[in-house]
Amino acid sequence: MVGDARPSGVRVGGCRGAVESRTSFRAPRPPLPPLSFLFVLFLAAPCAWAAGYKTCPKVKPDMLNVHLVPHTHDDVGWLKTVDQYFYGIYNNIQQAGVQYILDSVISSLLADPTRRFIYVEIAFFSRWWHQQTNATQKIVRDLVRQGRLEFANGGWVMNDEATTHYGAIIDQMTLGLRFLEETFGSDGRPRVAWHIDPFGHSREQASLFAQMGFDGFFFGRLDYQDKKVRETALQMEQVWRASASLKPPTADLFTSVLPNMYSPPEGLCWDMLCADKPFVEDDVRSPEYNAKELVHHFLKLATDQGKLYRTKHTVMTMGSDFQYENANMWFKNLDKLIQLVNAQQQANGSRVNVLYSTPACYLWELNKAKLNWSVKKDDFFPYADGPHMFWTGYFSSRPALKRYERLSYNFLQVCNQLEALAGPAANVGPYGSGDSAPLNEAMAVLQHHDAVSGTSRQHVADDYARQLSEGWRPCQVLMSNALAHLSGLKEDFAFCRKLNISICPLTQTAERFQVIVYNPLGRKVDWMVRLPVSKHVYLVRDPGGKTVPSDVVTIPSSDSQELLFSALVPALGFSIYSVSQMPDQSPQKSWSRDLVIQNEYLRARFDPDTGLLMELENLEQNLLLPVRQAFYWYNASTGNNLSSQASGAYIFRPNRNKPLFVSRWAQTHLVKASLVQEVHQNFSAWCSQVIRLYPRQRHLELEWTVGPIPVGDGWGKEVISRFDTGLATGGLFYTDSNGREILERRWRDWGHRAGLIKSHPTPGGNTPLQSGVHLFDGNMQLTVLTDRSQGGSSLTDGSLELMVHRRLLKDDARGVGEPLNREGSGLWVRGRHLVLLDKKGTAAASHRLQAEMEVLAPQVVLAPGGGARYRLERAPRTQFSGLRRELPPSVRLLTLARWGRETLLLRLEHQFAVGEDSGRNLSSPVTLDLTNLFSAFTITHLRETTLAANQLLAYASRLQWTTDVGPTPHPSPSHLVSATITLHPMEIRTFLASVQWEEDG
Amino acid sequence: MVGDARPSGVRVGGCRGAVESRTSFRAPRPPLPPLSFLFVLFLAAPCAWAAGYKTCPKVKPDMLNVHLVPHTHDDVGWLKTVDQYFYGIYNNIQQAGVQYILDSVISSLLADPTRRFIYVEIAFFSRWWHQQTNATQKIVRDLVRQGRLEFANGGWVMNDEATTHYGAIIDQMTLGLRFLEETFGSDGRPRVAWHIDPFGHSREQASLFAQMGFDGFFFGRLDYQDKKVRETALQMEQVWRASASLKPPTADLFTSVLPNMYSPPEGLCWDMLCADKPFVEDDVRSPEYNAKELVHHFLKLATDQGKLYRTKHTVMTMGSDFQYENANMWFKNLDKLIQLVNAQQQANGSRVNVLYSTPACYLWELNKAKLNWSVKKDDFFPYADGPHMFWTGYFSSRPALKRYERLSYNFLQVCNQLEALAGPAANVGPYGSGDSAPLNEAMAVLQHHDAVSGTSRQHVADDYARQLSEGWRPCQVLMSNALAHLSGLKEDFAFCRKLNISICPLTQTAERFQVIVYNPLGRKVDWMVRLPVSKHVYLVRDPGGKTVPSDVVTIPSSDSQELLFSALVPALGFSIYSVSQMPDQSPQKSWSRDLVIQNEYLRARFDPDTGLLMELENLEQNLLLPVRQAFYWYNASTGNNLSSQASGAYIFRPNRNKPLFVSRWAQTHLVKASLVQEVHQNFSAWCSQVIRLYPRQRHLELEWTVGPIPVGDGWGKEVISRFDTGLATGGLFYTDSNGREILERRWRDWGHRAGLIKSHPTPGGNTPLQSGVHLFDGNMQLTVLTDRSQGGSSLTDGSLELMVHRRLLKDDARGVGEPLNREGSGLWVRGRHLVLLDKKGTAAASHRLQAEMEVLAPQVVLAPGGGARYRLERAPRTQFSGLRRELPPSVRLLTLARWGRETLLLRLEHQFAVGEDSGRNLSSPVTLDLTNLFSAFTITHLRETTLAANQLLAYASRLQWTTDVGPTPHPSPSHLVSATITLHPMEIRTFLASVQWEEDG
Repeated sequence: MVGDARPSGVRVGGCRGAVESRTSFRAPRPPLPPLSFLFVLFLAAPCAWAAGYKTCPKVKPDMLNVHLVPHTHDDVGWLKTVDQYFYGIYNNIQQAGVQYILDSVISSLLADPTRRFIYVEIAFFSRWWHQQTNATQKIVRDLVRQGRLEFANGGWVMNDEATTHYGAIIDQMTLGLRFLEETFGSDGRPRVAWHIDPFGHSREQASLFAQMGFDGFFFGRLDYQDKKVRETALQMEQVWRASASLKPPTADLFTSVLPNMYSPPEGLCWDMLCADKPFVEDDVRSPEYNAKELVHHFLKLATDQGKLYRTKHTVMTMGSDFQYENANMWFKNLDKLIQLVNAQQQANGSRVNVLYSTPACYLWELNKAKLNWSVKKDDFFPYADGPHMFWTGYFSSRPALKRYERLSYNFLQVCNQLEALAGPAANVGPYGSGDSAPLNEAMAVLQHHDAVSGTSRQHVADDYARQLSEGWRPCQVLMSNALAHLSGLKEDFAFCRKLNISICPLTQTAERFQVIVYNPLGRKVDWMVRLPVSKHVYLVRDPGGKTVPSDVVTIPSSDSQELLFSALVPALGFSIYSVSQMPDQSPQKSWSRDLVIQNEYLRARFDPDTGLLMELENLEQNLLLPVRQAFYWYNASTGNNLSSQASGAYIFRPNRNKPLFVSRWAQTHLVKASLVQEVHQNFSAWCSQVIRLYPRQRHLELEWTVGPIPVGDGWGKEVISRFDTGLATGGLFYTDSNGREILERRWRDWGHRAGLIKSHPTPGGNTPLQSGVHLFDGNMQLTVLTDRSQGGSSLTDGSLELMVHRRLLKDDARGVGEPLNREGSGLWVRGRHLVLLDKKGTAAASHRLQAEMEVLAPQVVLAPGGGARYRLERAPRTQFSGLRRELPPSVRLLTLARWGRETLLLRLEHQFAVGEDSGRNLSSPVTLDLTNLFSAFTITHLRETTLAANQLLAYASRLQWTTDVGPTPHPSPSHLVSATITLHPMEIRTFLASVQWEEDG
Repeated sequence: MVGDARPSGVRVGGCRGAVESRTSFRAPRPPLPPLSFLFVLFLAAPCAWAAGYKTCPKVKPDMLNVHLVPHTHDDVGWLKTVDQYFYGIYNNIQQAGVQYILDSVISSLLADPTRRFIYVEIAFFSRWWHQQTNATQKIVRDLVRQGRLEFANGGWVMNDEATTHYGAIIDQMTLGLRFLEETFGSDGRPRVAWHIDPFGHSREQASLFAQMGFDGFFFGRLDYQDKKVRETALQMEQVWRASASLKPPTADLFTSVLPNMYSPPEGLCWDMLCADKPFVEDDVRSPEYNAKELVHHFLKLATDQGKLYRTKHTVMTMGSDFQYENANMWFKNLDKLIQLVNAQQQANGSRVNVLYSTPACYLWELNKAKLNWSVKKDDFFPYADGPHMFWTGYFSSRPALKRYERLSYNFLQVCNQLEALAGPAANVGPYGSGDSAPLNEAMAVLQHHDAVSGTSRQHVADDYARQLSEGWRPCQVLMSNALAHLSGLKEDFAFCRKLNISICPLTQTAERFQVIVYNPLGRKVDWMVRLPVSKHVYLVRDPGGKTVPSDVVTIPSSDSQELLFSALVPALGFSIYSVSQMPDQSPQKSWSRDLVIQNEYLRARFDPDTGLLMELENLEQNLLLPVRQAFYWYNASTGNNLSSQASGAYIFRPNRNKPLFVSRWAQTHLVKASLVQEVHQNFSAWCSQVIRLYPRQRHLELEWTVGPIPVGDGWGKEVISRFDTGLATGGLFYTDSNGREILERRWRDWGHRAGLIKSHPTPGGNTPLQSGVHLFDGNMQLTVLTDRSQGGSSLTDGSLELMVHRRLLKDDARGVGEPLNREGSGLWVRGRHLVLLDKKGTAAASHRLQAEMEVLAPQVVLAPGGGARYRLERAPRTQFSGLRRELPPSVRLLTLARWGRETLLLRLEHQFAVGEDSGRNLSSPVTLDLTNLFSAFTITHLRETTLAANQLLAYASRLQWTTDVGPTPHPSPSHLVSATITLHPMEIRTFLASVQWEEDG
């Protein structure tokens, strides 16, 4: 069954690692011959690693080579929306039109073959590309092949690194790199990652980039003190060892800090957005003649800059935000610069050589220098660009958008999975044309470093939400088609998008309805369904028609009802429950004032005087932790005599170190029913919380509602939820990096290095969370999981705080030009924190698996019931699983999505780190047999790729770097020899699987 | 001698009217065969007049054709200097870089053959052209030949019309058009004049344009009320009959008022400098999709605009100030506009057709419409763009620059003449390389409508002065070479540029020196030389060595001395006077307090109480006129409740109608010497005047000194010199138009038309003067001549005022963004008014000839004397005339300048209007024989051209228009059949003369 290679398009051409083209995607499926389960075995050696650099320009080895990198940085939304930037609308807000930038750059590149340019943001480039004529496309292909137009990074966007989940990062990179691979083949494949603008850099991002096959990483923003130290220590360039679990050099990434963020050197910005003087060199009598002076200025700059780096090469970023709309201005002056500066070599023996280059070509020269590079192991958070200027506010800015993004990630994975499981029937079916692409693209856009980061203007944030919302619609069609196909029932499916605020017209009015619960996990779930209903008692039947326990609970604050029942849903599948009103029965009010809630695993006690949580007990593990939780607010600085810096969308700067109580006590209501126990806490008119326990739940759920934050007192406010315990944490706490590996935190990771002084502990200690934050005293671990990207910190031992909402009255002068002071419904935010208390060795098992379910939660689809049968040849199904075997708990099904007409993209992930779980041995390598794993289709052909699926892994190779911490093993070529694969801790393996869908779906 | 045609480069090719190329100019002169005096006779018929329009686009005769005219308006200096605009320096002052505009336009034109563009300012274009590679030049030539790049206007600059002298206008147009003719041949010859920005339009400008061969004239600015009336009356397009003397259609010019000044219609500006929305047409789901809406908007605009014009054609100016720096933005959207709007013809029967066009192609369609057009005979001054917004301040803004410009005109003509008279010996000689081109170009730049107009920023005005100053230098070398060549004396020539403020180191220190007086007129002059000297008595000898009378006068205000003697200088030649100190003699102080001055022709009396002029008497004609002259100031408005309009560089808006006295009386000193009588009046610390009479002088000279104007009281001030007489002038006064024909003025020329209301009489009555202003009561005429461009008015009968200086504290919000409040020496201005009193019939003879001498005054060159002989073969000459015969008084030698290696440009002008002079019959046609007219060279070949010398007159033809005032005679082809030419009143005839310089120069 395995290893029997068969001819495949990808095997021809020896040195190419291109993956299958999408050309025929969505075309009708031709009949397939019955094929056995085949894997392709790749034994070809990787190509010479220099191949990708063959178009690089010549340098002068005995001189200082200044690599000019013409580039533009095109935010996928910021002060203007994506469309407004693309078309160049509202230039009164910002002069920026990407269509013109690309027109202009292509035209300027054609004018001189030595000119080079890099482009980054594929969200824009692909849009532009599709508007071009064949002739222009051909010209651009030629430019790419010749290395004159080079892509750097190549993601759909340049994603944020603090507020993004690794799953979404991988998706957006995959989308962008796929476009490049399909359009330009390996010629267009970026060799360097290029994150010049994101506001700090996560270790996980570097790890992902390494796994995507990038040879190097360039960025611009790091702490101003850190930069100074690095300049002095000649550590502007290092090898970043970005994983504690993955074996080097898997997650090693050569990393270069750019000398001048991403701007041109002073006085040498020749864009229409700059006011620097252009070259006047042809008329010495002109009062504006400046050629000599400019050449002198450049030579000094170059020489000074060269001293901060280790090789005879240095790079200058010639461009900035939305520059090159009139590329001729730039290139015309750069041409003159190069000509006049290099003429000095002959004229007076200058040892500076300046040339058009690209980051990849610069990197290639660094690699050839064969130096030993130092190694970096932590991350680059937080980022401060001056005293009191910590860019840690955006970790929490726009919490509603951050949640919508996370919810959409979940929804997109469900959509992708159903598209993969149902095959073409998902795209064309009784509900119309289903399509996952719009949501996939919208989600990719959301990863932009001004999108989910919350640092765009309000109207742009609204447009991001619009894009998500419009992306959901064709996914809903797709999911309806797929559910009809898989269940055999043609129902009038409804997707209640407002369940978070207890609104769903169908369930609130219908006497009977069906609840389809889809589970995107590789394991079955037992999940509490909660739906708003009318004032009745309901009968709930499981997929087999058996009545299951249910409750109708009245919500104290609104006097509305919610139906609760626990749904059992198989792995990668669905269960359909039927709900019907019971005649003439009303639910019982079931309030209580006894301030303890508990289930078989946990007990939470509340202070009867204050109404605050006071104690959490793990009954199973016999752990008791006094813990007080309450809400506080920092009053946002508007600038003071230390610094004029105000708190804003980017920057967190409290006016005082200590936050203020929202309220020292809460008005409480206790709700106890058979399926839930809840303490409702009301802190103030704008802050409340429900703390709940469901049966069989190993975490305490805190559902907070904050807003509208009052600002009548003139103070912007940054609201935190704080947990205070007596845990002796030794100044340490732990947070995830993009939702994957966990990093130890203290004041600052680099805080012990000489010369680094923290100007303010509170914002400086803030850390970005995707998954959660842990406190640990050597025995007990308190974990708080979040439902979105959020800032979190531990400022004193045993204390832990998460910033849930911000409303600010001043702009923080980082360009957005608007205070983070949304009017209207966006002021009102609801979210959840899940609190876990465990022994150290078992904590990971709890929080990893719970976090997985937070991100890939079951999706509820509703239907009135009584729909017609859809596929008459087969009995309807009320329960379905896409897997023939459940995945082991350490394995996450990270991606299952359509890739081509008969191809799926599959990612499997080991979701535990080395040594993390000592209880259930979940940190061990795990081996899986993919043969017959899926029930809906048969894999006929399997190819392993790099993480972003744009290169076959067997052909992928990266530049090798030597470090000063000892030899790095040479990576051995990866050859997939069997459908039985092993996943090591924190490993993600990516496959393109040719599949044949089962006839009975 | 005449009519014997010989082969000439210009005769080949039948239909070409190109003039000789400059290619070999300045190359060493090869020996010439002795040629007889030859004239070429052209008998070929003019070509079909449509020839120049053959590249025009196709229109749809049954639809409304909207001619889109992509254009840029590139001020040759305004907020930035010429160089700063060209290179794109200081984009923080204004985003504007002409080099990029031209790069970008060429590149965009190449992208699509239907696109068209017009370019106007040759000062910029020629500079850009010389920086291009041969390949680019070839591309541009092709574009021009194909009509895709068309030149409009084609002057070196788009000259101002109010503050410019006709001589300088002709020179600057000649410079620009010559570049086009030599670079592109007839393909590049502009067919329309294009004055879209100047602030009002003079009749003389239209006349000059007609004589240059333009087929039509487009402009943008006219009085807002006039425009409304014209729109209603369908008189936006007319035939302008621009001369009262020249026979129609010689000065007839079809004139079109553009619909929207020169801007694009609202919402359709797609430059990077605009913020209008670009087309979003490819994605109907985009929230920014606007294609339908934009098409609808355009169709409405086009239809509405079409109703204001008479044909089925209308024009839209798609561009504005310094637009098209990124031409792709404009063209990309215009492409879409054209495609989408014209698609409506098929889609729903739209009757609007939109196309890329040019003003010439639009004009060509108008001409083909064969309508009878109404006739316009007055001018378009003053210009107001709203109530209280009269653009009449700039007539007088920056009086020092205005004088420097006029002085430079004079100097350039002297330089040109000496270059023509001395031949190549002027360019290369003992003083180095002499060159008239820099001053010629600087003077052309000064004619720009923000240069001599005084409406640029201060630093730009300073740069204009710098350009003039740098232009003078190579002219001084040239003149030194020429004087040495012509005189045979190698002297250390000195050009005292500060004689106006009595500074000349040579004359103030040397015991002996020589005074070379060059006379650029066609007639001999008797001219009072006045030089600052030390406290001595001097002996002055004429060219023959004879002592002539001289005086040394002490200036009361400074106690310094000036030497006076009367120099007799032959036509177009020089006289050299020798001056030496008399030992041990000091000049006598010769002050007096008797307040009358007189000579043989005039007597001026002063009021003994006030010290003001009170009476002027023409002793010869026995005319006595009581006249009081004094200085006043208007307090400049800073805005009031009627309008927020302030007085500024452009706009004159006094706060009150009545000006205030600078002083009601003057402190006086009378100076009487044999060669001068002067009354020195001191009005205040910042205002004084010397009123003087020289012997044999028929005018009274008032030399005023004003400044620094005090503004400590918070009021900007606009200072006038006012003459009050009892003349019953019936509300009329007379001013020149660009120094040529005289126009009758009343409140406003169009003031009697229905619906036109004058919001303010004082600024609304202000008129631009180049030469002077006249009052006339049916018998006596009082004329005041000025020495520079100046605003003048008569606001009550018998009163006449000239604005001499302005200092303002507010900007007038027309873009310059700076108050006209120069600091430093520029605040201090000195000038002259010449007052003439004559009988009506003889007045013209006096003021025309005096005005000629004001503009073409003798040039004084100084030398220490005792220089070596330069040309040993010939005796030195102390007197020289370039003419063998003096020109008749009605003939002005307007231009005599080098054109090519052996070619001169010659313009002769009849300087009297029809019926103007009844005394000496100077208004009659006059016939001249050019044979042997010049002594320095022989004319071997003579070709007559149009006024700007870019077409042979015999081949020139213009579009013919029919008017509603009766038939216009068809112009007969002009054939030069003899060297004897006739000049009719106000006629200028332009010739290119091949010459051979006399061996003895």
